[in-house]
Amino acid sequence: MELSDDLYQSIEWKQNKLYIIDQTKLPQEESLIHLKNAEDVWEAIRQLKVRGAPAIGIAGAYGFYLGLQDFKGHSYDEFLTKCRRLSDYLNSSRPTAVNLSWALNAIIAKVEKHQEKGIPELKEMILDSAVSIHNEDRELCKNIGINGADVVPDNARILTHCNTGGLATGQYGTAFSVIFHAHQRGKVKQVWVDETRPLLQGARLTTWELQKENIPHSLIVDSAAGFLMSRGMVDMVITGADRITKNGDTANKIGTYTLSVLAREHGIPFYIAAPYSTLDMNLDDGSQIDIELRDETEVTSFNNKLSSPEGTKAYNPAFDVTPHQNINAIITEKGVIYPPFETNINNIFVKQFK
Amino acid sequence: MELSDDLYQSIEWKQNKLYIIDQTKLPQEESLIHLKNAEDVWEAIRQLKVRGAPAIGIAGAYGFYLGLQDFKGHSYDEFLTKCRRLSDYLNSSRPTAVNLSWALNAIIAKVEKHQEKGIPELKEMILDSAVSIHNEDRELCKNIGINGADVVPDNARILTHCNTGGLATGQYGTAFSVIFHAHQRGKVKQVWVDETRPLLQGARLTTWELQKENIPHSLIVDSAAGFLMSRGMVDMVITGADRITKNGDTANKIGTYTLSVLAREHGIPFYIAAPYSTLDMNLDDGSQIDIELRDETEVTSFNNKLSSPEGTKAYNPAFDVTPHQNINAIITEKGVIYPPFETNINNIFVKQFK
Repeated sequence: MELSDDLYQSIEWKQNKLYIIDQTKLPQEESLIHLKNAEDVWEAIRQLKVRGAPAIGIAGAYGFYLGLQDFKGHSYDEFLTKCRRLSDYLNSSRPTAVNLSWALNAIIAKVEKHQEKGIPELKEMILDSAVSIHNEDRELCKNIGINGADVVPDNARILTHCNTGGLATGQYGTAFSVIFHAHQRGKVKQVWVDETRPLLQGARLTTWELQKENIPHSLIVDSAAGFLMSRGMVDMVITGADRITKNGDTANKIGTYTLSVLAREHGIPFYIAAPYSTLDMNLDDGSQIDIELRDETEVTSFNNKLSSPEGTKAYNPAFDVTPHQNINAIITEKGVIYPPFETNINNIFVKQFK
Repeated sequence: MELSDDLYQSIEWKQNKLYIIDQTKLPQEESLIHLKNAEDVWEAIRQLKVRGAPAIGIAGAYGFYLGLQDFKGHSYDEFLTKCRRLSDYLNSSRPTAVNLSWALNAIIAKVEKHQEKGIPELKEMILDSAVSIHNEDRELCKNIGINGADVVPDNARILTHCNTGGLATGQYGTAFSVIFHAHQRGKVKQVWVDETRPLLQGARLTTWELQKENIPHSLIVDSAAGFLMSRGMVDMVITGADRITKNGDTANKIGTYTLSVLAREHGIPFYIAAPYSTLDMNLDDGSQIDIELRDETEVTSFNNKLSSPEGTKAYNPAFDVTPHQNINAIITEKGVIYPPFETNINNIFVKQFK
């Protein structure tokens, strides 16, 4: 069966115009907005209208082009100066977004390499770079999905956590791409969506994406996952990853570790889906991963309304670490990695760099 | 060290007047309201100003007295008729509240037994019954706490789920009573409070009770418990129970089962605290416990605000079942029950009924 490509995109470049889905309006309203210039892109990133590391990188790259398209000068040096200023400016919208600075630096490096080109050619080259960054991310996510769909059993009831879909990436997402492609093959009976406290990405975004694709799903509170597993209502668990170490230990949204323990307790396969770039070969194992502690108000309030007494302290780790022993396979765009992870992850890197 | 009795009460009978803490105003406001008559009590129960099975029973018993104190007749039959009507009326405030109908029936049975008494004496007997019901519940909760405090280690970092405190009972609560009494003995270093989705009883009520008693605590999202355990930050877990079967299997708030699996994974003791009346000797094991499915909107929205897309389905089991194998001990007012639960629970019943 031919895989369909018609999954929505949160970022679109059409007839020389940039459109994004305003994620701050989700899930109540699906609003496509036109970003006309670099300032619009800066605002959109700053205000989280576009979020998710890959998506921010893609929007930033298009924003870079938009900021230069009206450049009237003829001097290369002037153009390069403008590029650098623009890059600093766009970067300041979300300084911790690694994909953003990576995309901007990659484009500037190209401009620096092609001093011989005229301004119009340089502009075209910049747009081509933005389109490439976008396409490469789409392609990568698609391949994660195609590879992952193979491991999904027929009539699968899949439990997932957080948001891993096309909203955060060029298209398709990571774990969501696996669900999407498995659904295209008729394999998905039901998706259980963890609401994913404290920020409710599951309740707000994953349900929205599943609804859009008509994939059957139900929302659950995070602490109901164990009950569902104990009643034989879950066939597999799949989540994304923020960072994977050399031995396969995986940092992901708080609650992922708990799911992995529950899955093992019930003999349910537990998968991670992530691009190859998530593998951090500088870290030996999960104990070396710093866990970000986020603002207490994320926990002490709900939907922006205080849910606990004034002055309540909260402890709010954003991530946890799932030990590789609890992971059945890591699904990447280059293939599915099975244990022993240390050896098999290393093999992929060797192949990549030789 | 002498145990202090000064823990707040959510229901107070003072100078022939009934006061309750309006729980619908918590945690933002601590409002003591005076319930003047049976109608006030009916409204308070209906509107969840008083909640928790034992607390509803106590309030209902006082409400029964309030509804009769101004009875002007002299005929026993008239009085009994009035009693029965009043009982039906109060029962209709919350028809599923077992403790309420139990308390009202117990009082009517007494009235029926004492046809020889005059109306003033009957009124006095009814008030005495209400006070007894209240005192017995306080005593019972206190004894759960005293028995449970023995199992709490020094410098304990205790994780708890849902609300089990004095708000729902005559005073002290169940698991909360253990924490309170252990704290009185200087044993509690920290309490980790699961916010307890979907209704956030932990975030709203348990934090409020801990704050009131100056017991050090922090709120966490339910899915952070696994992370805390994996980092060695939890010494014991204690929760209440809705129902305990003959073999020790325990139904309690959704998420309790998950905590028990995580606790066992990390070698952390897991305790249940509940009155003896929670033991249901008609059920052999947890598979016979019906799990109530509650309204989807509890999951899809918060504070009447939708947190997921219009039309999102949710699956909302209110409880889950923790198998006895995951429970280190069941703490009751009659003592701490250790495994083998089937034998030891049975021993208590034999002692009770001989």
